[in-house]
Amino acid sequence: MNTFRVLEIKKSVYEGNDARAAALRAELKRRGLFLLNLMSSPGAGKTTTLLRTIDALGAELRMGVLEADLDSDVDARAIAPRGVKVIQLHSGGMCHLDADMTRQGLEGLGTEGLDLVVLENIGNLICTADFDTGASRNAMILSVPEGDDKPLKYPHMFSVVDAVLVNKIDAMDFFDFDLEKFTKRVRELNPRARIMPISAKTGEGIAAWAEWLRAEVRGWKEA
Amino acid sequence: MNTFRVLEIKKSVYEGNDARAAALRAELKRRGLFLLNLMSSPGAGKTTTLLRTIDALGAELRMGVLEADLDSDVDARAIAPRGVKVIQLHSGGMCHLDADMTRQGLEGLGTEGLDLVVLENIGNLICTADFDTGASRNAMILSVPEGDDKPLKYPHMFSVVDAVLVNKIDAMDFFDFDLEKFTKRVRELNPRARIMPISAKTGEGIAAWAEWLRAEVRGWKEA
Repeated sequence: MNTFRVLEIKKSVYEGNDARAAALRAELKRRGLFLLNLMSSPGAGKTTTLLRTIDALGAELRMGVLEADLDSDVDARAIAPRGVKVIQLHSGGMCHLDADMTRQGLEGLGTEGLDLVVLENIGNLICTADFDTGASRNAMILSVPEGDDKPLKYPHMFSVVDAVLVNKIDAMDFFDFDLEKFTKRVRELNPRARIMPISAKTGEGIAAWAEWLRAEVRGWKEA
Repeated sequence: MNTFRVLEIKKSVYEGNDARAAALRAELKRRGLFLLNLMSSPGAGKTTTLLRTIDALGAELRMGVLEADLDSDVDARAIAPRGVKVIQLHSGGMCHLDADMTRQGLEGLGTEGLDLVVLENIGNLICTADFDTGASRNAMILSVPEGDDKPLKYPHMFSVVDAVLVNKIDAMDFFDFDLEKFTKRVRELNPRARIMPISAKTGEGIAAWAEWLRAEVRGWKEA
């Protein structure tokens, strides 16, 4: 018994993604609906972080979730028991969502009465960074086992985000991850992004992340 | 002082990648040159595995390495001190290499006298699986921290490879990774792929991987 739908989204036939993304963002702003675009490599911990985020903010914000994947519904299955509105999007093999595909997802989900929708984007550090989804804010997760050199290899991703979550910090001693070096590398690409170490597994750092997100959602509704 | 070049590869203007890949593979076969296409998510351990592979096989096989990335030359820098021929390829933002781009890389490297070239493909589990590079064999690395559910989410990648290396098994206890479940999920997509648990960090399992690769290279030259 699933409490979510699976939506096969269509490849956008429209040119001009930037303009369509700007239009979607303006519409979300008018409606006071905050859309967070959450990106990462496969297995960096997007879903577990999202579960922690729902636990931290679900009582005060009405949340919805768009789970995008090439295939499967494992992520929507993981989210559904939390009682938030969730829909699984299948991208038909594509490695990113654009603004039109995001709009299809929001319409499929139904956003009436929601404060915050999180788009869990498809797992990769390349294509997803190339397409503005129309989100209010962009965040990414880099997990400790991936290594502190990733800003050098995927500079575009690190330059387009408003927040960088460094996940699996409980494994920091196990892997050779230098947070100071990593932070310096991110700073060179993106001086304004907020960098937040977390462990979605233990809950460490989640309060600071939730506080950042809460403030962004409030600012979006008020300003 | 770099001992490698950086080559900005051009986006292929050719249609029909499959035919071009088949032609490249046939040419490599005629020349007795084995090309391994190594794929994974960012940070799964391609470069460290490659260093271990060079240490295991470098004395008996003349090896070359194509390091493909969006940007940076950190991987070629890591490989160069091993004394094998290496070239850094920049894809100009593209998330994969196709057969024509691989050919540009091989020509840039210079393959005269080599037995084995490893293409360290761009770090992602989506686009790279969609384009036949013309390689003799395709291998992928899935690292333990990424999770055992990845075959469900990236089925195409798991279905096109000849070998699956499960890396960072020294971290198996730390993460909830079920090797049996993972193996079953891979088997459903790909009954013939060889699945090999390794730790590129400790060296565990590298001998079995090197043995598989050695046999494949010999078979390619002889058959």
